[in-house]
Formats: sequence, C-alpha cells, structure tokens
Amino acid sequence: MKKLLIASTSTVHGKGYLEYILPELKLFFDGVSEILFIPYARPGGITYDEYTNTARKGFSVINIDVKGIHEFENPIEAVKKAKGIFTGGGNTFELVSQLYKNKLIDVIKTVVENGIPYFGTSAGSNITGVTMKTTNDMPIVYPPSFDTLNLIDFNINPHYLDPDPNSKHMGETRETRIKEFHKFNDTAVLGLREGSWLRVDGNQVYLRGELPARLFLSNKTPQELPTNSNLSFLMN
Amino acid sequence: MKKLLIASTSTVHGKGYLEYILPELKLFFDGVSEILFIPYARPGGITYDEYTNTARKGFSVINIDVKGIHEFENPIEAVKKAKGIFTGGGNTFELVSQLYKNKLIDVIKTVVENGIPYFGTSAGSNITGVTMKTTNDMPIVYPPSFDTLNLIDFNINPHYLDPDPNSKHMGETRETRIKEFHKFNDTAVLGLREGSWLRVDGNQVYLRGELPARLFLSNKTPQELPTNSNLSFLMN
Repeated sequence: MKKLLIASTSTVHGKGYLEYILPELKLFFDGVSEILFIPYARPGGITYDEYTNTARKGFSVINIDVKGIHEFENPIEAVKKAKGIFTGGGNTFELVSQLYKNKLIDVIKTVVENGIPYFGTSAGSNITGVTMKTTNDMPIVYPPSFDTLNLIDFNINPHYLDPDPNSKHMGETRETRIKEFHKFNDTAVLGLREGSWLRVDGNQVYLRGELPARLFLSNKTPQELPTNSNLSFLMN
Repeated sequence: MKKLLIASTSTVHGKGYLEYILPELKLFFDGVSEILFIPYARPGGITYDEYTNTARKGFSVINIDVKGIHEFENPIEAVKKAKGIFTGGGNTFELVSQLYKNKLIDVIKTVVENGIPYFGTSAGSNITGVTMKTTNDMPIVYPPSFDTLNLIDFNINPHYLDPDPNSKHMGETRETRIKEFHKFNDTAVLGLREGSWLRVDGNQVYLRGELPARLFLSNKTPQELPTNSNLSFLMN
C-alpha cells in the first residue's frame, strides 16, 4: 500500500533541519534502517554531497542511515532496492530535470505504489502531485515536462503564504497565482503552510501539523481546511 | 536603431495603470499614433479583450490608440505593420507559449531591431531578455522553450523585492533564487524594483525611475546601481 509523508518545508522558523517533524518521521519509517536520499533539487546550488550530509545529520537523530542516490552507479537500481525514499527541497525545475534525465519518474512511482515509504519536503513534495505547475520556484533550467509522479491526484503548493494586507508590492499574491493556474488547469491545489504535512496511506489522505491548509478547486471559492482533516475526497 | 522601454511594473502602489510612466511613454512613442498591444500574458486570467481595453484606457491619456494583436486575422502581419509594440504583464509562461504558438518570436525581434519602439511591463519586460528563466511567475503552462527575444544581452527580474529581515517564512528570497540561477547559467540578471525602467537605444542602456537596481553577475557579489546608471556594459 502507498505510503507518503508530504511536507510543506524541511525546516520551520527557529528550529533545526527536520526537527519539527522527527517524531512523525520515526513512526513513518518504523522498521526502516536506511533510506535513499534524492538531492537533485540542490537548494542554493549546494552539491549532492553537501546536501546528502545535511539529510544524514537530520536522520541520524532517529537512527536512520541516509545514502545519496548519486553514490550509486545505477540510480534506477538504487530506487528499486530502496527501503525508503526521501526527496529534499530546493529547485523543482532542476529536480524534475534530473529525474527525467536519469529516467527515474516511472521507477519511483512504481516502488512507492508498491509500498516503499516516500517522504518529501517542498520541491520533494511538489513532485508527488500531478504536475509541478504550482511550484514557487524560479525556472532556472528547462525540464522536458512539467508532469510529475502523480502519486496523489492533486497538486501541492508548498510554503503556502497568506497575502500581506499591508504590502505595497504589486507582484501577484500566492492566491492570485493559483487562481491563474485554474484558468488553464482543473487539478485541485492544496496550499500547505510551513509546519503542515499530509499523511497518505493508500487512498486515505490526512492533513497533519498545527495549521489549517487552503484548498483551491477550479471555479470554487478557496476553502480553509482545519488540521486533521480527511482529504481523501481529493483522490480519484 | 533598437528602441525599448523595459519597465518592472505597469502600476506602482497608489497610482493608476501606467500612470507613473506616462510622461516617459509620451516621449518614447513620440510621433506614433497607434500601437499594437500583446495581451497574451492575461494577468489573473482576464480575456484578451478585457486586457486590451485596460491598455487602451491607459494610453488614451496620451492620445495613442491601442489595437490588440488578437483583433487581427494574421498576428505576424500585425507585428510587421506595427508602428509601436506594447506587451503587458501577467504570466510569462503563458505569454511565451502564445508567442511560440503564433510564431511571433522572430518577427518581433526583427521589427524591434529595425527600430519599431517596444514597451514592456513585467512579463513583457522579462521576454526582452535572453531567457525567461528569471521570471517570478508560476509555471501554469509548459512553453516549448524558455528562450526569449534576446533584445538585451542580460535577463530581467521584474518586481524585484528585497529580503524582509523580519520574515519567518522559510521559502527562498528573490536574491537566493537569482543566485541559484547563476549555479546553472552565466547570463547577468538585473533586479528592477517597481517604479524603475530601462531605456534602450541601440546598445545604450540607462536605468531610469527613482530607485536603484540590483545587478547579479555570476560568481560576483550583487551590486546596487543608482538610478540613471549607464548599463551599456551589459550589452555584448
């Protein structure tokens, strides 16, 4: 059975890397002693080694080893043999480009559908959706497609930000951007605030963390969903 | 001789559409009684007619007529016959998709290089650069390429925003995003704050408006450039 943890962010303000979500990660990866880390999103352009070390340090607190996918000669085999997968945040365009380049889209989808637990933060959460068309990232590289893993039947907007009523900036708010998305697409979009995550078990989806999430459906008024909401109705 | 006005935004806080830049537009389009408007970026998903009416109202104050490119049977011919061009802001991904779909990239580049004055705001300014890879927009549609008009030899980041020192949000700042761009690309990026614009005459580029702009060069510390700076050194 499919098992995912889809988090808005790796880090909440004032806490260390993954710190806020460690208790949940311990439960989620129960019985797993080593996970495969996908560092392709390279936040700030850091190297795969640097990023993997960060993930390794984060997971060492709950006694889980981390191996970077770049440490394997054959990344497809690495995914096939993984007991758990973690895709970190960074730039979604670069992440998706590398997933296509390394022919990993189908194999990740398959192993996760067969029950290998998948944890994503930010860009790593974006790619669990139908497309990456609701990322906040800058298009610094051109990926061969915006289609992503479609492990859930809706899109994620991570780091969801409410409009600032005092802002004098004329650039679009996040809500305006997602509404523009719905002029061209029908896929539901869940705005996940920092500190929120989704727990997916098969077709059951629950919102976790302390905050409500904001749901955008095409041609509907956006809705605030309280924490612990059952979001399974978003799965086809 | 190439003649462009490349503005960060159409509207500054507290003023009407184009109001802040009308005196400059009057000079820029001196002798031109009708311009061609490209409404493809559809801000907020509004229709081409709605958007063209907005532009028409804005330009009526300086007695310039506006025709939408969608009002012509053949958009390529419309560009060839235009006496001036204005591309409005909105979503850069949709704008670029439509420019490719309608085979307009080359013809716009040619007429502008031959002296037809071009005015862009926001997304319409983004596309004057080498690529659209430094847009702030959400990738709501998949364009066939991120390459744009390359009428200037650098990229624009419109609506440039300084980091908020009090923010508790963990999403990337604009500066972080542009630095990530430079991990994968060498093109110079000019962060144009709202109310700033560039005036281009041939290979001469000057920063206008009241604010400084922020210049990002690959592997260099970002630089603040005061208004009225000569930026011609960015042209090859």
